[in-house]
Amino acid sequence: MAVAELAIEGALLIGSDIRRGTAGEIRATEARTGTKLSPGFGGATAADLEQACALAEAAFDTFRNAPLETRARFLETVAEEILAIGDILVERAMAETGLPRGRIEGERGRTVGQLRLFAGVVRDGGFLDVRIDPALPDRKPLPRPDLRLINQPLGPVAVFGASNFPLAFSVAGGDTASAFAAGCPVIVKAHSAHPGTSELVGRAVQRAVAACGLPEGTFSLLFDSSRTIGQALVADHRIKAVGFTGSRGGGTSLMAISAARAEPIPVYAEMSSINPVVLLPSALASRGAAIGKAFVGSLTLGAGQFCTNPGLVLAIDGPGLDSFIAAASEALAACEAQTMLTPGILSAYCAGVEALAGHAAVKTVGKGKAGEALTGGAQLFETTAEAFLADHALQAEVFGAASLVVRCPDEAALHAVLAALEGQLTGAIHLDDADTEIAARLMPLMERKVGRVLMNGFGTGVEVCHAMVHGGPFPSTADGRSTSVGSLAIARFLRPVSYQDVPQKLLPEALRDGNPLRLPRRIDGRLTLPEA
Amino acid sequence: MAVAELAIEGALLIGSDIRRGTAGEIRATEARTGTKLSPGFGGATAADLEQACALAEAAFDTFRNAPLETRARFLETVAEEILAIGDILVERAMAETGLPRGRIEGERGRTVGQLRLFAGVVRDGGFLDVRIDPALPDRKPLPRPDLRLINQPLGPVAVFGASNFPLAFSVAGGDTASAFAAGCPVIVKAHSAHPGTSELVGRAVQRAVAACGLPEGTFSLLFDSSRTIGQALVADHRIKAVGFTGSRGGGTSLMAISAARAEPIPVYAEMSSINPVVLLPSALASRGAAIGKAFVGSLTLGAGQFCTNPGLVLAIDGPGLDSFIAAASEALAACEAQTMLTPGILSAYCAGVEALAGHAAVKTVGKGKAGEALTGGAQLFETTAEAFLADHALQAEVFGAASLVVRCPDEAALHAVLAALEGQLTGAIHLDDADTEIAARLMPLMERKVGRVLMNGFGTGVEVCHAMVHGGPFPSTADGRSTSVGSLAIARFLRPVSYQDVPQKLLPEALRDGNPLRLPRRIDGRLTLPEA
Repeated sequence: MAVAELAIEGALLIGSDIRRGTAGEIRATEARTGTKLSPGFGGATAADLEQACALAEAAFDTFRNAPLETRARFLETVAEEILAIGDILVERAMAETGLPRGRIEGERGRTVGQLRLFAGVVRDGGFLDVRIDPALPDRKPLPRPDLRLINQPLGPVAVFGASNFPLAFSVAGGDTASAFAAGCPVIVKAHSAHPGTSELVGRAVQRAVAACGLPEGTFSLLFDSSRTIGQALVADHRIKAVGFTGSRGGGTSLMAISAARAEPIPVYAEMSSINPVVLLPSALASRGAAIGKAFVGSLTLGAGQFCTNPGLVLAIDGPGLDSFIAAASEALAACEAQTMLTPGILSAYCAGVEALAGHAAVKTVGKGKAGEALTGGAQLFETTAEAFLADHALQAEVFGAASLVVRCPDEAALHAVLAALEGQLTGAIHLDDADTEIAARLMPLMERKVGRVLMNGFGTGVEVCHAMVHGGPFPSTADGRSTSVGSLAIARFLRPVSYQDVPQKLLPEALRDGNPLRLPRRIDGRLTLPEA
Repeated sequence: MAVAELAIEGALLIGSDIRRGTAGEIRATEARTGTKLSPGFGGATAADLEQACALAEAAFDTFRNAPLETRARFLETVAEEILAIGDILVERAMAETGLPRGRIEGERGRTVGQLRLFAGVVRDGGFLDVRIDPALPDRKPLPRPDLRLINQPLGPVAVFGASNFPLAFSVAGGDTASAFAAGCPVIVKAHSAHPGTSELVGRAVQRAVAACGLPEGTFSLLFDSSRTIGQALVADHRIKAVGFTGSRGGGTSLMAISAARAEPIPVYAEMSSINPVVLLPSALASRGAAIGKAFVGSLTLGAGQFCTNPGLVLAIDGPGLDSFIAAASEALAACEAQTMLTPGILSAYCAGVEALAGHAAVKTVGKGKAGEALTGGAQLFETTAEAFLADHALQAEVFGAASLVVRCPDEAALHAVLAALEGQLTGAIHLDDADTEIAARLMPLMERKVGRVLMNGFGTGVEVCHAMVHGGPFPSTADGRSTSVGSLAIARFLRPVSYQDVPQKLLPEALRDGNPLRLPRRIDGRLTLPEA
């Protein structure tokens, strides 16, 4: 760890500057032991924030108007710089989060893969949605002007690192990568649960900015010893969108700050989801026990600290469901308690579990092994559809490896429970062929409640690809029209701008005659591809 | 008018029902005379609203899952039914708005054209953004599941008719057409300035719903004698998006209602814009007078009652600007005062004009002819960049034919004034070849402030096409990521949904193997077109 500590100074990254913040200090904690790690991280002052915002604003036009190839190379350079940090990064992230090496290495691969995916998206250029309606000078009664449309980036974006993905949804994670891909400078407010990891990755981004000859304000990284700086960042008039992954309370407070601005801005907060899993009768009858075992694998993955953790199981009562619960309970009993990301997350988890365990209509039906301090043991509960429908509190997310099975007397009750749910990131249906009709009746409800419908699987394991939606109706996200994972995440940071009768030399290159950037374009409404 | 009055009952349209509301009454007014027209329109009660929402909710799944061809035919049938109303509609709209026959007939053509445009968009299917990432069962370390994505409609949409477009942005206007095209049922809250026009068009939509065999809740039309019903409509949990065109106060109040909901929803409010027109030196020097004359044509069109009315002119001081003002003033002096849409709009216009005329730093430099009661005369004012920058109130929209010229001492002042503006729908630049460099320096600022940049023209005359953006940063619209005119308006009512490992027969048809609907698709990230 000596090298790691050498490389980490506890410094803010304001454009190309590396300097210590003076507004208090945050300390990293070794998740497994609770030991404070060195060095401390100086918190940003209002002046630091002001400078980061001014630099981002100053960088915006240059960054957005740089060639797409430069933007793509920048994303790839960030990926290369992250890999170049080497094992120091893995060890520091493991220490700060308590997550095992395999998970952190996998997450690093995902982070790098995301950056490269967005490089490809930038080169493809389809995200620009180029549309050209050529002039019709002879049209009667009035001529039609020349109209061309392109998506432009919104402006500087504030990104809040997530505690549960120290790499893939933090400093250079999905929000940052998609904002960069859109052409937006980024100011990251680091999560205080992994500040060392944040600084290491932040420096990698900072080096990539310099290596690619981009303006320094393209990226800044702030630590915040209170909540003041994060809130002021969202309120700053130069910030034009916000990416956040975290709690419902945190996300809705950012939404409120945005709504109170002179110019409200989009807030993409990924917040709260219990990800219903529906077990259909024939599947339960034929393989309830196998599903129960697989379910526990998903439930306990990463100590349950995933937004897509299966926190709710719905099924029609019967022996199939009994065998599911029995198998899940047996699998759970063998599960070791796992270190949780932070003491705060652990105590929230314990409070959630206690509330369920003490609820008059809820029965504890499975438990993982009890562990040492700072670990959370998995828990399985059950209740009835009637009780669930009677108490809205039963659908509150318990972040961690806890889940609630709702026994439904019949299909109508199952529909009623699903209909009573708030918006969700994912919804899973386990089915056999014989369940097709009941599944077909569930689909319309499922499609309206969630961002991703999946069959015979669990929502954990979010593929980073083009057809992924990691989003969903409120409160799973603040804006259900968006995804924070996958290539479509770039759309969050774009707005269309139309150009009417603008001379060629004043048009963005992507809109010029002859299609110099070889982009897919919609001409007079008809989609055309560049020749291969 | 006898036939028109026969056809109008003052009735609510709740699904397939036609019945009189009992919560108070609104009366149409003949705009030119102030005379109350018959019949009165009964206001909707809370029970009427409840029924409209319940019907819309019940219709949603059926409507969205009907074949795309049915949806396209429905849009075309609405267009046919509107044309079939015949001259009754034109006469009633003329009476209620004071707009001349040519304008109303043109607007009917635009309304019908919009509906047909969206029928084409529905058939094209590109709006679905179909994405397929096929399974990779052999991938290491983990297989990739089959992932498919499609845009799904948000749900029932509330549309508020606009006073200034009694056809094109009212009952079957752009918001309604694009929501239908997306697959959303619509509940319209009619604007009380043209209730008879609203009922006539509403009945045309109601007939089209029946003719196309769609569920009755696909469309309802409500009159509101207070503001209660409109507000309750936006607050209703079954409503999933709002389309509105009107005042800043009205739009921001709907935004606040949405933000206070248990589930906040997108509000697309098109509100307030003064549409800066920048006159560059060489263009002014060579043809300042001609631009001044053309400017007055745009300023006084439709009594200035357009969202894209040129309310602000920016130029560097000099003889070219003097000749612009002189020519504009001369052209204005010949302009007849025009009837305004409503007494409320007229009195707001008069108050805005009085505030400018009485402002210490503002000089009146041109006036149209004074007219009779209920008409508004055009007004041209000027001020200095310094005064404009010192008083934010000078950028408030005056809805009507009033405009303010800001004399800038130099290019830096012109930039400063533009930078100080709030978000706008349009920004125009008048330039000659010799102005190219100064225009190039203006473009980045313009692109960030507006939804549509146009050259050597004025923003009035909004082409309904694929490359149009009628939107822009707040407060020109509530959501600057959207357009309310043109085919891209459909995107406002969609959200992506991902399907993972879903069997063929449970997938939406658009996502099935073999591309049965012959849609453009993104396969593994690569855009492919169906064979011709």
